[in-house]
Amino acid sequence: MITKFVMPEVIFGSGSISQVGECSLRLGAKKVLIVCDPGIIHEECLEIILMSCKEAGMDYVIFDDLTVNPKDFEVEKGKALYLEHGCDSVIGLGGGSAIDVAKAIALLSTNKGTIHDYEGIDRIHAPLPPQIMIPTTAGSGSEVSQFSIIIDSKRKKKMTIVSKSLIPDIAIIDPQTLSSKSPQLTAATGLDVLTHAIEAYVSVAATPLTDVQATNAIKLVGQYLRPSVASRSNKEAKTKMAMASLQAGLAFSNAILGAVHAMSHAVGGRFPFQHGDVNAILLPHVMEFNLLACPDKFATIAEMLGEDRFGKSTIQLALSGIENVRRLSKDIGAPKSLKDMGLHSDHIKEMSITALEDACMITNPREISIVDVERLFHQAL
Amino acid sequence: MITKFVMPEVIFGSGSISQVGECSLRLGAKKVLIVCDPGIIHEECLEIILMSCKEAGMDYVIFDDLTVNPKDFEVEKGKALYLEHGCDSVIGLGGGSAIDVAKAIALLSTNKGTIHDYEGIDRIHAPLPPQIMIPTTAGSGSEVSQFSIIIDSKRKKKMTIVSKSLIPDIAIIDPQTLSSKSPQLTAATGLDVLTHAIEAYVSVAATPLTDVQATNAIKLVGQYLRPSVASRSNKEAKTKMAMASLQAGLAFSNAILGAVHAMSHAVGGRFPFQHGDVNAILLPHVMEFNLLACPDKFATIAEMLGEDRFGKSTIQLALSGIENVRRLSKDIGAPKSLKDMGLHSDHIKEMSITALEDACMITNPREISIVDVERLFHQAL
Repeated sequence: MITKFVMPEVIFGSGSISQVGECSLRLGAKKVLIVCDPGIIHEECLEIILMSCKEAGMDYVIFDDLTVNPKDFEVEKGKALYLEHGCDSVIGLGGGSAIDVAKAIALLSTNKGTIHDYEGIDRIHAPLPPQIMIPTTAGSGSEVSQFSIIIDSKRKKKMTIVSKSLIPDIAIIDPQTLSSKSPQLTAATGLDVLTHAIEAYVSVAATPLTDVQATNAIKLVGQYLRPSVASRSNKEAKTKMAMASLQAGLAFSNAILGAVHAMSHAVGGRFPFQHGDVNAILLPHVMEFNLLACPDKFATIAEMLGEDRFGKSTIQLALSGIENVRRLSKDIGAPKSLKDMGLHSDHIKEMSITALEDACMITNPREISIVDVERLFHQAL
Repeated sequence: MITKFVMPEVIFGSGSISQVGECSLRLGAKKVLIVCDPGIIHEECLEIILMSCKEAGMDYVIFDDLTVNPKDFEVEKGKALYLEHGCDSVIGLGGGSAIDVAKAIALLSTNKGTIHDYEGIDRIHAPLPPQIMIPTTAGSGSEVSQFSIIIDSKRKKKMTIVSKSLIPDIAIIDPQTLSSKSPQLTAATGLDVLTHAIEAYVSVAATPLTDVQATNAIKLVGQYLRPSVASRSNKEAKTKMAMASLQAGLAFSNAILGAVHAMSHAVGGRFPFQHGDVNAILLPHVMEFNLLACPDKFATIAEMLGEDRFGKSTIQLALSGIENVRRLSKDIGAPKSLKDMGLHSDHIKEMSITALEDACMITNPREISIVDVERLFHQAL
């Protein structure tokens, strides 16, 4: 089998965001569109970034007119601003939503049509302008991935856009930006990291290069997600979770994902739920379903999460890993069921069809039918 | 601490070399200089590569006028050929020597002066033309690294050139190319992989991203170097050693190396010895010297090599790892001492001065003086 592994240049560490101006210059940028979460406008990290851009002599325009689970029309607005101001590069700053929008704007700045034309795998042809991504959650992994997820507002469907062109030039990961986040957001985004790592590790497209990243990310989440939720000021936990998010991102960008993400995209297209929360609810159910495909890998996941192999069969060990994931979700206060979030069984049929068509379903390790997807949704209800 | 991690796009797998033409096109190349080991001219892999270039409509010129431990004047010859034929890109095909020369030619094709002007760290300013590297040994790791090592023929000194610009655009790693190599070359290059991984792991510039690559490379060498030396047709062993070489390359490109390489470069600048053999002789002596700096890391190295932690103190475990390295070298028939290779104590004083000035010495985990280097050379004699 021939496999590929691609990643951006990564700059990691406390204080690293102050290098953004210098990085933009190095990429040949002169006027940058900064795409950010609306909530970030009053945060210190934006101030540091603007200062760094000014010091490097960079012009900038800020775009923050976007929502969680971002929409096609938000991308269009950002693109119009980019063109109106004659920008030549983008910086994405925020959670996965801001970064996905930044990528989509970069895409449309040099490629014709609307964002809908690029749904699916490898549809981008013209090269994109310089892109620097700065995550403020640990998190989406979008800062290193070849994915952008944008909602088609008419079809109420999350479009999965996959292309090497969406891998940014530089990802700047500064654990200091994580300390302003609430325990609830830290929990939801941390469980998203765990889902990325587990789905990438059991993916049919996994390779030794993605496996080392995925297993280390699982280990870090097992050790540091609880303390990170417990305290905003635990610097060690924030740094380790930032690394976990990065490594999970590198793993899933190259190994792709599985049924949890396919189903979660189907939910997120219709309902404004936190992506990480939906993943956390679906994850143990899909793990139980997928166990048949690769018991050894699920046993390794259990060990990475701190379970002891001694005295257990492979299956027993693998099952203890699934229980470990359930306990972690419960400990950090993640929602227990889709019903808790407001979902009803009426939606399941339609969402199951959408999930089965999602690009992430292709790499799920166990063959899956519409009946399986419906049953999994019912279990998670 | 702020750290960086950079790597090329990697294509890995049996048969992957037939993608080289398509990859060159994708990078915008039209006429490529193929820099290769002279021995490779009659091998099948060159035939496949030429066919792939032809099919993609690429023009090419072949340059193979180079030697092991390549020299400045060989780079000049290659550069002249590149310019004479109006090439716009390079492919490096072979062991570390061919790849290092390919990088140096790419460097001089767009940057003024001679290769000597670029010795040291970050001296390259103009962007380089597209570069694709295809290693045929497991190996130098140069296909993914920011290093090129070229001998200054007047000073009889290996120049270490370090720059992100030297990271190729694409590395194509095809384990099938390894099966034509002799057991002796497989042993020497495999011990070079082990040295890269160990030095990168204990380097003061190591990060979690380099550690996962380095530790996995050490594990793979421990499991697969013996079987790879034992049989040319053991495909699993060849594939695993190709992965080990790649991962060690990713680790040392970003974490840099240490005293073994600094000393080995000093030897290789004066004597035409196999780089991997010299490293293998120096490695256990330098490990014993460096043990003081990071016993925990040396204990982990031992575990990766298959030593059992049970009933051992950290230091006992670490020492068993050093013995493990000695036994591995012996088992696969590597030379035991520098004297065996033809070196005399007369050379030690001068080589120690050169070694101390090498860029690789900066990241050695234990502070090291001229007296220490001389003593280590005497021990390895």
